[in-house]
Amino acid sequence: MQIYGDKRSGNCYKIQLLLALLGKSCEWIDIDLLAGDSRTPAFLNKNPNGKIPLLELDDGRTLAESNAILNYIGSGSSLIPSSAFDQAQMLQWQFFEQYSHEPYIAVARYINLYLGLPDERKSEYESKQDGGHKALSVMEQRLASSLYLVGNQLSLADISLFAYTHVAHQGGFDLIGYPAIRNWISLIKDHKGFVPMAV
Amino acid sequence: MQIYGDKRSGNCYKIQLLLALLGKSCEWIDIDLLAGDSRTPAFLNKNPNGKIPLLELDDGRTLAESNAILNYIGSGSSLIPSSAFDQAQMLQWQFFEQYSHEPYIAVARYINLYLGLPDERKSEYESKQDGGHKALSVMEQRLASSLYLVGNQLSLADISLFAYTHVAHQGGFDLIGYPAIRNWISLIKDHKGFVPMAV
Repeated sequence: MQIYGDKRSGNCYKIQLLLALLGKSCEWIDIDLLAGDSRTPAFLNKNPNGKIPLLELDDGRTLAESNAILNYIGSGSSLIPSSAFDQAQMLQWQFFEQYSHEPYIAVARYINLYLGLPDERKSEYESKQDGGHKALSVMEQRLASSLYLVGNQLSLADISLFAYTHVAHQGGFDLIGYPAIRNWISLIKDHKGFVPMAV
Repeated sequence: MQIYGDKRSGNCYKIQLLLALLGKSCEWIDIDLLAGDSRTPAFLNKNPNGKIPLLELDDGRTLAESNAILNYIGSGSSLIPSSAFDQAQMLQWQFFEQYSHEPYIAVARYINLYLGLPDERKSEYESKQDGGHKALSVMEQRLASSLYLVGNQLSLADISLFAYTHVAHQGGFDLIGYPAIRNWISLIKDHKGFVPMAV
């Protein structure tokens, strides 16, 4: 099993963090997003959507989408809740991450940190701030009454949302107003096996 | 169990279609998106993210995100593949739908069909066309060699992507160049229990 990824990408870091928390390892093939490695014909042949991370099994079958990969690698572990309703709530937070969180917080971070906030993307960067704060508010409301996103136990939902939330300041999102999120970040960092994100 | 939804929304139709294919029914509470019903304090109390569909259990617990609701209602049915890898591939397509398909095709359809393509949103509408066609191309490539998105059996992945794909023309996406998608749409419409989307 191999993972194609760029360790500076939060979507790829999710996989790294899950593997570390489970005490597992996996061959990692570096794909440099900024150099266009995910747009080569060879890579598009593996993932027609041209996105990383991508998991490839030894028999050549592939799996895309960070949160789907988490569900595959985490299958059978304690990071997937046992009841059908709690499993669905975990998925709810993972879909929330991809639709209501990542397109604001990760994109603002990308424009600011990797592109250096160029003038021609400043208005796009600014347009991401309201949506990002809305997503953080939804998380804050949940985490104010629950240690983790699904019940009181770490699940894949936390891994999915930790990735870009703990570096949200790099996209201009100050977490000072989100005490429950800051507490949750500390809790996750204290977990056995935790690995920090590459810089 | 109750569903809060607007039957003209593809995300809500997914739930209707799944229930119909499973021969199940569920109390439906109409939420008029265009009238702002999903932004009232009472609704935000149920879903702080202010989105529909929303499932509410008899004990008051709630579940948001259309694809998470599909996984909950479909749990234990033949619409969820049995192997861990096939389940993950089903999720892959559902995450693809929310990140790479819905933000282009559903949003273009909304601007065109419900807002009447006003001048001030014309450039946004046009900016959605490339991304939508890219998503359709990824689906076409898959469906050219497989009857359904995951293997040769209907799964939740097909329900998720059918919702906005079969009405993509309402967002300006002509399906004439996608014969495998058109064949797949016919196959789904032929399933026992199929119900069309409200207009």
